[in-house]
Amino acid sequence: MSRENFDKLGEECGVFGIYDFDGNDVASTIYYGLFALQHRGQESCGIAVSDTNGPKRNVTSQKGMGLCNEVFTPDSLQALKGDIGVGHVRYSTAGESVPENAQPLVLNYVKGTLGLAHNGNLINAIELREELEKTGAIFQTTIDSEVIAYHIARERVNTSSIEKAVARAMQKIKGAYSLIVMSPRKLIGARDPYGFKPLCIGKRDNAYVLASESCALDTIGAEFIRDVNPGEIVTITKDGIQSDCDLCIPKEKTARCIFEYIYFARPDSEIDGVGVYHSRIQAGRYLAQDSPVEADLVVGVPESGNAAALGYSLESGIPYGTAFVKNGYVGRTFIKPGQSSRESSVQIKLNVLKEAVKGKRVIMIDDSIVRGTTSDRIVKMLRDAGATEVHVRISSPPFLWPCYFGTDIPEREQLIAYNRSINEICEVIGADSLGYLGEERLSQMVQGLPICKGCFTGEYPMKPPTRDIRGNFER
Amino acid sequence: MSRENFDKLGEECGVFGIYDFDGNDVASTIYYGLFALQHRGQESCGIAVSDTNGPKRNVTSQKGMGLCNEVFTPDSLQALKGDIGVGHVRYSTAGESVPENAQPLVLNYVKGTLGLAHNGNLINAIELREELEKTGAIFQTTIDSEVIAYHIARERVNTSSIEKAVARAMQKIKGAYSLIVMSPRKLIGARDPYGFKPLCIGKRDNAYVLASESCALDTIGAEFIRDVNPGEIVTITKDGIQSDCDLCIPKEKTARCIFEYIYFARPDSEIDGVGVYHSRIQAGRYLAQDSPVEADLVVGVPESGNAAALGYSLESGIPYGTAFVKNGYVGRTFIKPGQSSRESSVQIKLNVLKEAVKGKRVIMIDDSIVRGTTSDRIVKMLRDAGATEVHVRISSPPFLWPCYFGTDIPEREQLIAYNRSINEICEVIGADSLGYLGEERLSQMVQGLPICKGCFTGEYPMKPPTRDIRGNFER
Amino acid sequence: MSRENFDKLGEECGVFGIYDFDGNDVASTIYYGLFALQHRGQESCGIAVSDTNGPKRNVTSQKGMGLCNEVFTPDSLQALKGDIGVGHVRYSTAGESVPENAQPLVLNYVKGTLGLAHNGNLINAIELREELEKTGAIFQTTIDSEVIAYHIARERVNTSSIEKAVARAMQKIKGAYSLIVMSPRKLIGARDPYGFKPLCIGKRDNAYVLASESCALDTIGAEFIRDVNPGEIVTITKDGIQSDCDLCIPKEKTARCIFEYIYFARPDSEIDGVGVYHSRIQAGRYLAQDSPVEADLVVGVPESGNAAALGYSLESGIPYGTAFVKNGYVGRTFIKPGQSSRESSVQIKLNVLKEAVKGKRVIMIDDSIVRGTTSDRIVKMLRDAGATEVHVRISSPPFLWPCYFGTDIPEREQLIAYNRSINEICEVIGADSLGYLGEERLSQMVQGLPICKGCFTGEYPMKPPTRDIRGNFER
Amino acid sequence: MSRENFDKLGEECGVFGIYDFDGNDVASTIYYGLFALQHRGQESCGIAVSDTNGPKRNVTSQKGMGLCNEVFTPDSLQALKGDIGVGHVRYSTAGESVPENAQPLVLNYVKGTLGLAHNGNLINAIELREELEKTGAIFQTTIDSEVIAYHIARERVNTSSIEKAVARAMQKIKGAYSLIVMSPRKLIGARDPYGFKPLCIGKRDNAYVLASESCALDTIGAEFIRDVNPGEIVTITKDGIQSDCDLCIPKEKTARCIFEYIYFARPDSEIDGVGVYHSRIQAGRYLAQDSPVEADLVVGVPESGNAAALGYSLESGIPYGTAFVKNGYVGRTFIKPGQSSRESSVQIKLNVLKEAVKGKRVIMIDDSIVRGTTSDRIVKMLRDAGATEVHVRISSPPFLWPCYFGTDIPEREQLIAYNRSINEICEVIGADSLGYLGEERLSQMVQGLPICKGCFTGEYPMKPPTRDIRGNFER
Repeated sequence: MSRENFDKLGEECGVFGIYDFDGNDVASTIYYGLFALQHRGQESCGIAVSDTNGPKRNVTSQKGMGLCNEVFTPDSLQALKGDIGVGHVRYSTAGESVPENAQPLVLNYVKGTLGLAHNGNLINAIELREELEKTGAIFQTTIDSEVIAYHIARERVNTSSIEKAVARAMQKIKGAYSLIVMSPRKLIGARDPYGFKPLCIGKRDNAYVLASESCALDTIGAEFIRDVNPGEIVTITKDGIQSDCDLCIPKEKTARCIFEYIYFARPDSEIDGVGVYHSRIQAGRYLAQDSPVEADLVVGVPESGNAAALGYSLESGIPYGTAFVKNGYVGRTFIKPGQSSRESSVQIKLNVLKEAVKGKRVIMIDDSIVRGTTSDRIVKMLRDAGATEVHVRISSPPFLWPCYFGTDIPEREQLIAYNRSINEICEVIGADSLGYLGEERLSQMVQGLPICKGCFTGEYPMKPPTRDIRGNFER
Repeated sequence: MSRENFDKLGEECGVFGIYDFDGNDVASTIYYGLFALQHRGQESCGIAVSDTNGPKRNVTSQKGMGLCNEVFTPDSLQALKGDIGVGHVRYSTAGESVPENAQPLVLNYVKGTLGLAHNGNLINAIELREELEKTGAIFQTTIDSEVIAYHIARERVNTSSIEKAVARAMQKIKGAYSLIVMSPRKLIGARDPYGFKPLCIGKRDNAYVLASESCALDTIGAEFIRDVNPGEIVTITKDGIQSDCDLCIPKEKTARCIFEYIYFARPDSEIDGVGVYHSRIQAGRYLAQDSPVEADLVVGVPESGNAAALGYSLESGIPYGTAFVKNGYVGRTFIKPGQSSRESSVQIKLNVLKEAVKGKRVIMIDDSIVRGTTSDRIVKMLRDAGATEVHVRISSPPFLWPCYFGTDIPEREQLIAYNRSINEICEVIGADSLGYLGEERLSQMVQGLPICKGCFTGEYPMKPPTRDIRGNFER
Repeated sequence: MSRENFDKLGEECGVFGIYDFDGNDVASTIYYGLFALQHRGQESCGIAVSDTNGPKRNVTSQKGMGLCNEVFTPDSLQALKGDIGVGHVRYSTAGESVPENAQPLVLNYVKGTLGLAHNGNLINAIELREELEKTGAIFQTTIDSEVIAYHIARERVNTSSIEKAVARAMQKIKGAYSLIVMSPRKLIGARDPYGFKPLCIGKRDNAYVLASESCALDTIGAEFIRDVNPGEIVTITKDGIQSDCDLCIPKEKTARCIFEYIYFARPDSEIDGVGVYHSRIQAGRYLAQDSPVEADLVVGVPESGNAAALGYSLESGIPYGTAFVKNGYVGRTFIKPGQSSRESSVQIKLNVLKEAVKGKRVIMIDDSIVRGTTSDRIVKMLRDAGATEVHVRISSPPFLWPCYFGTDIPEREQLIAYNRSINEICEVIGADSLGYLGEERLSQMVQGLPICKGCFTGEYPMKPPTRDIRGNFER
Repeated sequence: MSRENFDKLGEECGVFGIYDFDGNDVASTIYYGLFALQHRGQESCGIAVSDTNGPKRNVTSQKGMGLCNEVFTPDSLQALKGDIGVGHVRYSTAGESVPENAQPLVLNYVKGTLGLAHNGNLINAIELREELEKTGAIFQTTIDSEVIAYHIARERVNTSSIEKAVARAMQKIKGAYSLIVMSPRKLIGARDPYGFKPLCIGKRDNAYVLASESCALDTIGAEFIRDVNPGEIVTITKDGIQSDCDLCIPKEKTARCIFEYIYFARPDSEIDGVGVYHSRIQAGRYLAQDSPVEADLVVGVPESGNAAALGYSLESGIPYGTAFVKNGYVGRTFIKPGQSSRESSVQIKLNVLKEAVKGKRVIMIDDSIVRGTTSDRIVKMLRDAGATEVHVRISSPPFLWPCYFGTDIPEREQLIAYNRSINEICEVIGADSLGYLGEERLSQMVQGLPICKGCFTGEYPMKPPTRDIRGNFER
């Protein structure tokens, strides 16, 4: 259930905003929206709401460590009164999580109260902080959102509207961000010019919705309107949606994080016109074309490998099957076996369906290998269950480079592909053969959408920071 | 994740016991064993351990409401010292759950301390309680385990061993039970003569294990030895395993609960020689043979419908696919939408992969329909996502009768199949066609194993109680 | 605030029962009653209620570890529906406390459901347990209440009423007990023949109340009716109060625990006709008569030494004053300073009013010294604050003997008075002089009431058990 | 226990800081210091520590709602590593408390990290906020501390040291404040020029301590050095204590809050050279001189009335006694009786010692009457207990005016003394006579120290704000 249990990458956040023109309370809808985005962050979550007909300094919020259904109760949602609101789920990294960093950020500024939720990583946050501090600013958190908020507040002083202040702030902040800002009477969504992180617009009755992924719209019964474009600022008021695309760059220069399609996003989401499920099916098909192998069964490592496995099966004609049962009760408080224990973390979470694999040549599809700490165990489990051959296919290229835009990739030295050939990796994980998705396939799997694939190639859409920003501040 | 979230039946419990002859502490292994059995009960859980080399009145236990990883912590497991132990997970029914009823039951009796964990339902528990009360007995819980414990304790007074006392007690108790008893120096497993509920034996190094399902053995890295036979009592001591089969009845009279194969058990378990996954694949194949229909895609309602869907696909040649994404974060404390809410419980937990079903004729496989409260929503969701036809196939016959042996079937009047023809049900759920598994297929899907299928046929292996036992005591 | 924070003795419990003939819910009144008795036990508490007009097997209860206001909430009290009920607070001893032992005990027996709350210690509990176990009884707790309940249930089988069953049970159980039993239609109070522990009767409107101490009656606005007599059984039904005194012994043979007057009971309680406050004032007066000393100020160690200090002052004419400020926020979860810390537990809880004692000869009154672990610190604190002399007077004799009747006296070797003369003790605690209350004064301070003073004299009203019962079972 | 349980005024906070030159961890000492200051605030508390030898952006903190022993655990204190630190306890007002407002405030600014704890109320906070916001500042809390922090950070940009920045900030902020600032290498204490709120300096071994009250020094075993003077800034570094008194005003213009002496401070504290206990004794003596009455007994309403009662007794010769027993278990989660309940909040918390007052003419001393909501109940309780006369004496003048400096005085209309003569108040509370302390006695009771007595006289040491600041922001 919780993604960090396997050898997977972590992302930062999910955001959700809503403005109900009929004046209905929105907190419980935000709750269900966040619930649909929970896969994007399990460390902490929060909701802030405001009454657009009330005073301008009037926000109620609740934040806490844990999953949505741990933090909120029916009573606490009931207490969050307001027809406009913003919510946030935050990614869990071990140890460095503190309650202060939970979002949305709520703050008083010159024009009232702002709520702000943010997904992504700025690459010039440190410089911006230092600059601000030199003018006397104080920071109470270590999240980029506070830097963004500061810039918006400063710009607002000499700007005629909050959306213009957001636009000016966006000229200064650099990096990946999808942003929702709630002002006393407006809900604003913005996406960085490269469009690293997704953000879409929905509508339900007389309410407009902003969400990281379209699956959150389905969950609350809202209709998908469109994606916020890279670089676009949308301003939702009672007069409708206004769009500002001054910061938009040519589409071919945009750079969606390809890992959203490979792993982060829920398969039932559609991002910038491309279905996530479809792109994974495609990746599987490409693998079948590029790395064919004779076998009796194609299986996915649950959950994220299943779609690519189906694609591989469809393309190759080799039957698709289920080889693993995943224990659905692994929660945040999962107790990990000690060093001396006979039980292993992998085995506790995953078991092989012996009857499904016994005596068979198995193609096992996974979406990625990061450190490789679990792949060898899973391959061994298949063999122990009687698989005669185990061929591993990975629906992404090997990780080799850091990400500066919000994906939590470990130190290079910890990456299994660092300084190893495919054959060497194959040996480490004990497979009979190993195939990765070719880098050139990435763009194809998303129908030619411009993407960022820096973690595979080391080439980034914008110049990476000269000093390593990772670890300086809590991410 | 939590089973009660859909229109599913509930079962009572999972049990786990271990005796480590090398004297190692067993609590954390019990924890992982229970974790593997969590699908059998999410209301409460407990562990009791004892030191076989210590005094005879020496048991440490911890019980609590909630999932294993909510109740136990590394510290609390550490505090449970002992080389023999028993654990239990309990099924959650709404409202009537009380901490007092958590198991294992721990009690002092004439020969020291007993720990007792039990899965199943006695049909003469009320009579036995009344009989005992007439002799001055007091009851502190409303669980059958206390009745069983009482009988064992009474028989022990004039019996030479605990296993003989268990045997004598089993002559009095009637119904379904799989039982683990921990005495100061022995671990005992017993199964009722009909074998309604599963129980198997495993071994890891120098430790013997008893568990409701074999998946728990895999999880802790133990080897499967064999099932406890219906009616058998196995006694595990440092001298090995002793078997008493005096109460065993002819195999053809035994009556395993078929619903373990259809839904309760984890697919990676094997019960009495028949793999659960395989039996579900078979059920799907039979459905394809018996209720064929032209279509483009076969999908399962996750998780329990997936195996039968695969079977249907394999038999029919119609491609298998994934149509649903299940939110993996629905926990025990899931907040249900209120009546007036636009959000529905089903939609929050399940979303359709539009791109997978759009424009397709879909066969949707589920394991059962109980009240039918969610089937119509799911069918509608498929249609809304663009499916041109939705054919529903159910991998079990219609529910029509009560269960007296531990399965929580609602009042007859609430069952969708009660007083309705297949066509009428089909109309209620809005499908284009509907097919159930034929009753005669049940025995076939488990390779001819003798089974209880009373909930489908109204014919039970033993005379049901004349007064309704359900509701008299908390189940 | 919490008594265990100083070098004090611990007692077992407080009990409270109520039957409201007007049919009002009684749970919240029990809550306030227990709140008034909280000084008698801080480990756990519980409430069980029943509806006398409902079915006979119909009890709702809630129990938990901690103080009343930690265990109960407005909602949980609301959920406890019933016009008859019983409550309990339990004394906290370190470590051995388990939730299972919380009271009241609720049990099903031949005639329906019983609730039972009990204060005191049986001296033949082990024998009785063993006897019962030999007939097949099982025990799920280690509290005496379960033994009592068993006897009541067994006797009830061949007895015409619950009160007669209680009477017969009382012929078998030996030791100290004040007991409240709630049956489906009756509230019963009983006190052991010696009357070790207090129990009194009150009335509020159309409701009768039983409580360990009269202060609980004041708190809920009930009128004090009378004490239950030693050996008496009172049965409260809609027909009024019935008394059974068959087990009563001559008053001169009764034996109230004198420590209730010295320390346990709240000063605003009156037990068997003698006010606790008054008896403490008297103790102080006797100390002034028997251990006079020239001084400028008499002070009490809060809270329990204050009344005796006032008595000493009144008798001696030496001005009474306040020398200590006690931190009122020491709760159950108080963090104790580590060994290496500069802070001491005593100093954190107690501070001296320097200006009150500076340059003065101070008489410091405390109710008892058990191990003496804090007295020396307090004396030193007075000296550090400028007291020129510190004369310690103790309003009870030296502890020298074990108690078998419910008071938690440490091992003899740990008692400061064991094998030490008064002068030696005086030296240990660093006082200028030390005086204890003479043993002959004990009876006088309670106006000649027959008392048990075994912990001072080693002479007990009934033969103590030959084997040490302490430690065998949880106390 | 908790002060808000009676009809008392509330104050804001207690502060504590320490710098250990030997490099020892200070968190647990801060904990005990806060514990001693708990009476100054029970809503929330927090500790922030830093390692003066570590990097400049290096603070660990923990904050939470509740009492110190609810918020902190041995483990969480252990995790707070650092040799310099600051702590805070915050006053609880109903409803408006939010976790965000807990202190100390921790923030990153141009020179590293600051920790800031503050007691008092600024009267120009709104203006300062607005001013700052106009320059683009954002506020994440509604506490004055954030305003102060902002000013310090801004001034620090063009100032050579943190203490100079504090000094400059103090030129802008107006009102009452005692302040502790922790910078990476310095611990700074400051008191507003009027000295409304107390702050003192202590020393323990090689560590310097700052605390709201001297009782906190006693508790941790530190030696009292001196008070921080009104208007003074003390800067503690490894080079010792530096004092800056540029903002100090002539002593006769200073204005200590007299209510610290009357009620807020712990009696064992000494503030600006005057013992709190002594001042209360004096108040009692003055009452005896100014409002004499014939009676048999003088009693205090616990705890705060006791010292004045003793003073009254000493002066009048009428014996001092104890009339009330206060339940020590009233915690934060105290369940208040509902409207319909027979139990009253007062009676549940306070009981009368009947035997002490029966047949007696009683003088009852309390420190103040605010709304008068409990006084009548207490007077009635004394009468019900048999007191023949009840004469009430109040050791402060009648409340008539608002406080702008941090004391939580209700709306004027709710004050019992508003628009009522002494006789009328006497009638309302049902006393036989009533006497207040004369306003002229206030200065005398603190040995002529210049004080603020605005709440009694409406005359304030500085011009009160023209618009009501109360309610605008959290108080």
